[in-house]
Amino acid sequence: MVDRIRTSEAVAHIGARVKLAGWMHNWRDMGQFGFLVLRDGTGTFQAIVDNAAEMDKLRALQFESVLEVEGTIVAEPRQASGAELHDCQITVLSPVLEALPFEINKKELKPALDFFLDHAPLGLRHLQKRALFRISAELMAGFREYLMDQRFVEIQTPKIVGSATESGANVFVLDYFGRPAYLAQSPQFYKQIMVGVFERVFEVGPVFRAEKHNTARHTNEYVSLDIEMGFIQDHTDVMQMLTNILRHTFNRVAQKCAGEVTLLKLQVPAIGETIPSVRLPDAQQIIFERFKEDCRGEPDLAPQHEAWLCEYARKELGSELLFVTHYPTAKRPFYAMPDEQDPALTKSFDLLFRGCEVVTGGQRIHRYEQLLNNAQRWGIQPEQISGYLQAFKYGMPPHGGFGMGLERLLMQLAGLTNLRETTLFPRDLDRLAP
Amino acid sequence: MVDRIRTSEAVAHIGARVKLAGWMHNWRDMGQFGFLVLRDGTGTFQAIVDNAAEMDKLRALQFESVLEVEGTIVAEPRQASGAELHDCQITVLSPVLEALPFEINKKELKPALDFFLDHAPLGLRHLQKRALFRISAELMAGFREYLMDQRFVEIQTPKIVGSATESGANVFVLDYFGRPAYLAQSPQFYKQIMVGVFERVFEVGPVFRAEKHNTARHTNEYVSLDIEMGFIQDHTDVMQMLTNILRHTFNRVAQKCAGEVTLLKLQVPAIGETIPSVRLPDAQQIIFERFKEDCRGEPDLAPQHEAWLCEYARKELGSELLFVTHYPTAKRPFYAMPDEQDPALTKSFDLLFRGCEVVTGGQRIHRYEQLLNNAQRWGIQPEQISGYLQAFKYGMPPHGGFGMGLERLLMQLAGLTNLRETTLFPRDLDRLAP
Repeated sequence: MVDRIRTSEAVAHIGARVKLAGWMHNWRDMGQFGFLVLRDGTGTFQAIVDNAAEMDKLRALQFESVLEVEGTIVAEPRQASGAELHDCQITVLSPVLEALPFEINKKELKPALDFFLDHAPLGLRHLQKRALFRISAELMAGFREYLMDQRFVEIQTPKIVGSATESGANVFVLDYFGRPAYLAQSPQFYKQIMVGVFERVFEVGPVFRAEKHNTARHTNEYVSLDIEMGFIQDHTDVMQMLTNILRHTFNRVAQKCAGEVTLLKLQVPAIGETIPSVRLPDAQQIIFERFKEDCRGEPDLAPQHEAWLCEYARKELGSELLFVTHYPTAKRPFYAMPDEQDPALTKSFDLLFRGCEVVTGGQRIHRYEQLLNNAQRWGIQPEQISGYLQAFKYGMPPHGGFGMGLERLLMQLAGLTNLRETTLFPRDLDRLAP
Repeated sequence: MVDRIRTSEAVAHIGARVKLAGWMHNWRDMGQFGFLVLRDGTGTFQAIVDNAAEMDKLRALQFESVLEVEGTIVAEPRQASGAELHDCQITVLSPVLEALPFEINKKELKPALDFFLDHAPLGLRHLQKRALFRISAELMAGFREYLMDQRFVEIQTPKIVGSATESGANVFVLDYFGRPAYLAQSPQFYKQIMVGVFERVFEVGPVFRAEKHNTARHTNEYVSLDIEMGFIQDHTDVMQMLTNILRHTFNRVAQKCAGEVTLLKLQVPAIGETIPSVRLPDAQQIIFERFKEDCRGEPDLAPQHEAWLCEYARKELGSELLFVTHYPTAKRPFYAMPDEQDPALTKSFDLLFRGCEVVTGGQRIHRYEQLLNNAQRWGIQPEQISGYLQAFKYGMPPHGGFGMGLERLLMQLAGLTNLRETTLFPRDLDRLAP
């Protein structure tokens, strides 16, 4: 018996008898022989099947049947892989007997998004789709790799929480042995607490938002890439860390996912030493002057404003990314650090990437009295957040951090327009399955 | 202004003026001078404060106040670090004004577990406690590192699910915009689906079990380290992969956490080429013969049985780990692969480590018809798991995987007896905060 090799390694085995295994990606029956394309985890590979008995095995099958194919690797310069499999002996591991609901071996996926999502267990096998989620894995790996190198410690914090006080609205309620509990909207409180333990922490995990609007850039469960770091001067230290993380992560994607980047025709941004930054009031002035809409004085940016600012940044600053800083204190959470120069504004930032916000962060209040006062001004009962406040009562350094949506980052990187295209199994108002 | 260095690097700066920053871990006032021990993310470091004005700053403070200390590094062979800080100038970043509820600068933590957990935001700063969770981070990193090297792709699957059919019982119910939804008890269905996409996948994430018993080895939310791999021969391929993962991970912990391993006096097992394995009926026979309890024919092992088997494995087989295989079909989920030799048993395994089960896994059914029949025999309506079944309808290879509890693995590695000691912020019947 010969050992299995992957299709991506086949060209290194020219002349050898090998075993390949994977899915029947394509099969064209030419009568006396046929072209079988086998897909495995690493790629696709063509086999020539010219034995009548072997051909009969395939003729009974639908695409996506799972096969083992023993054969001889032969050089074939006309193939992208440089080789082909000949003299094939086929074993059917799992026959597919029902025709597929759509053609997943075509270059482009045809079905509408909803139909695709209903059939995601099959549809995610499409080469472009799976390329997207392989990049997603590398985004996580790059994020962690850089942070571990910078002495950040990974934490895993609870998703079931006893009080829903961070924002109050948009929280899922749970029956916890007869009493209410809530799904965490972010690891915010816990990652701050853990700055008291490790100075620098990160977490990659699910967050839950019971938002009742079904927009292309919102879902109700997503993966948040979170960091929190102590002993900072101000929010710009966090912005610089984020810049370094993204530079490292994008470089890693470009290197480790070169095939996927080519397949999807992605433009991976090269990030320089810094990312340009503009204060919110100045950003609104730019929008007023260049795009003739007066949003000056508004507490936040609308999606159209983010798109305009990114257009401005691309043309004028040569950057696909733009920081917007100093959001109003009134619109940020109670723990956001006010700017000493203008306490109506916070030392906070959003990062815009190709027209959409992908990160929110800033410096946090670290003094116990100030935080307690702010909580009360925001209408939060101290006893509801006593665990959180405990960390501050017993000494917290100046610190800050951010939360970055994995699926949004991927959506913007891939130039897609709906978060459901970059979420493995999305959850929204209408969708709880698969 | 001088740059901040970490306490662990201080000895490399002898003679230099540096800035350290961290928590006031200890302060002994000797009258004319005092010993300040500063703790940062990397360790602790002693400073001699002998200026009256600087001493007065510290005299007003409780332990855990956050300080910046500028001073000169001086060689001091009597210190474990080999150096000390002299001529100190102190800046108080966050004063602590209230006495701590327990002494977290002592070698051993004194408070009872419940009191400790109520004060975890402070208590986790204890050197032994944080060492434990730094090891936890390395367990995750080692797991991922090995798997990425073996072509596994990381996935993030939804924690809110539309049906609760994997086991039915012990599931948390959620209000999802007016209809019921459930918290995932494992990523089982999704990771199997994703074998159809990537062949090999892994996930590190929270799982939720609404178990109503408060035992030392159960909590209601924990972190599961999951893999699933395609194109296996049988469950022994999964067991070998798990063996390799644990060997790599434990070696990484021993190397990257040498200080923590020493501090906690951990014995990190050296794992050989294979881990010994025994079939459940044979394991029960061993218990009967050696420990005089007749559990032969029972469908599962009780905690005492696991302890006995590990005692046997340690003494007779020289191993701190032991696989138990071939659990009864009737007690395993509907997707467990029956053994062709004896269909009343499954190609499944548990891994016992120092007296406690830490991993459950096995080969899964991959043929659509067999899986559909089994689901129906287990009383599951096919339409409830239609997304899962879809993957099988359209071709799945022979595959298997496992789920490993991060906190349990750490508990057994550290020789602790309660899962709440190795869970950052545990959730149980009585505890939803902090």
